[in-house]
Amino acid sequence: MPKMSKRPLILVTNDDGFTAPGIQPLVDVVGDIADLLIIAPAKPQSVIGHAITVNAPLRMTPTDYFGKHKAFYCSGTPVDCFKLGMYESGKRKPNLIVSGINHGSNVSTNVLYSGTMSAAVEGALEGIPSIGFSLCDHDWSANFQACKKYVKKIVNKVLEEGLEKGVCLNVNIPDLPASEIKGIKVCRQARAYWDDTFDERMDPLKKKYYWLTGSFHNHDNGSEADMVNLDNGYVTIVPTQFDMTAHHAIGQLNEWNL
Amino acid sequence: MPKMSKRPLILVTNDDGFTAPGIQPLVDVVGDIADLLIIAPAKPQSVIGHAITVNAPLRMTPTDYFGKHKAFYCSGTPVDCFKLGMYESGKRKPNLIVSGINHGSNVSTNVLYSGTMSAAVEGALEGIPSIGFSLCDHDWSANFQACKKYVKKIVNKVLEEGLEKGVCLNVNIPDLPASEIKGIKVCRQARAYWDDTFDERMDPLKKKYYWLTGSFHNHDNGSEADMVNLDNGYVTIVPTQFDMTAHHAIGQLNEWNL
Repeated sequence: MPKMSKRPLILVTNDDGFTAPGIQPLVDVVGDIADLLIIAPAKPQSVIGHAITVNAPLRMTPTDYFGKHKAFYCSGTPVDCFKLGMYESGKRKPNLIVSGINHGSNVSTNVLYSGTMSAAVEGALEGIPSIGFSLCDHDWSANFQACKKYVKKIVNKVLEEGLEKGVCLNVNIPDLPASEIKGIKVCRQARAYWDDTFDERMDPLKKKYYWLTGSFHNHDNGSEADMVNLDNGYVTIVPTQFDMTAHHAIGQLNEWNL
Repeated sequence: MPKMSKRPLILVTNDDGFTAPGIQPLVDVVGDIADLLIIAPAKPQSVIGHAITVNAPLRMTPTDYFGKHKAFYCSGTPVDCFKLGMYESGKRKPNLIVSGINHGSNVSTNVLYSGTMSAAVEGALEGIPSIGFSLCDHDWSANFQACKKYVKKIVNKVLEEGLEKGVCLNVNIPDLPASEIKGIKVCRQARAYWDDTFDERMDPLKKKYYWLTGSFHNHDNGSEADMVNLDNGYVTIVPTQFDMTAHHAIGQLNEWNL
């Protein structure tokens, strides 16, 4: 009997919500090569990080928003979506998790705040190859056309080669026409940071409130820093792990003899 | 003229909310050695991770809940609290951030979900020595008495020695009487994970909802794994960093020639 050929199963999520334009090009590309299970937040969940919902119940509602693809929107966070996706897929474990395409960069330390990347990190934690994709344009009308080629290339490679256990990919794509993107660079997370400030305002009842604002600064010009390469027109891939231990610091702390 | 002696400034936050019993022993200990600025969430923000509030304004309300200490409760997340604390402290930059004492363990991969630890990680990102403390007892009536000795010892050491840039400490304290705690061990994050499931229920309107539930599993018995040492009666310290790059994977990905 011939071996059954079976399409892989890809779980698709994002943090901008299931109606965000960025998820569509991702669905288009991976829908050509795999069966899909789409579970994305009902509403935008940007900068929600690795939050999960444990003190309230979750809702998961089927939707035909993605045509032939099995899809749900969920009341929770991106990590909740991933966990519900794993539950919903039952015995057919997904071969890959893709998250995005995020409206806006998740380069450098933004990985910490990103719901898009938190879903991918959670995937790594569960031992499933996972990729977060982001386009460096926050606009709802951003042009995701040039992303498709890179999504396809990276997804196919990961399906073929797999990823090391505990590692997922953080992919950022410059906001440039396809012809101006120089290629792909494997990078490390740049040591950049937000210089925060707050805009103090008075509400109509004369009570103070604060808007977080600020600007992102990078003084890390290393040749492997993701931000530098992204600014230079490359798609950047940072292998990202859930182990946050500063292994190099263990020896020094042991010298404290606490 | 004699040199002015000045007490350090310590910023105190948590994720269980400003009225959570666990913040009080922390305030008691650090209040003896430093000036305090307390900014904690108005309500519990457990498992909120590194979420920040950018699409809504924040409120920060002064409170005399902590007696003589300058204190506010804040409508946002623990990381919002840290950021507002930095803003509020103005030119007097805090010498140390302490977050907790959390009601419940933040051992192993729980660091990813933890608001307590996210505030500390954000501190590291801003270049300020930061420590998250957790007691392995979720109960609101947990006994924090035995924690005080270890909080004092670790805080004093960090004030004295500082911490390497980019590194904060994740301290977990076993739920044992002081006499049964064996000491302090410097550890790495154990490779443990949540085996999730969902409890499916029907609401009174006959619509389905889901509660996240599950159990935490550890198959990592390494002598430096935090969970093992905590289970064996030690206070564990994991040096924790905001760099999530899987540096060891860069070489392998480069071989893909993408």
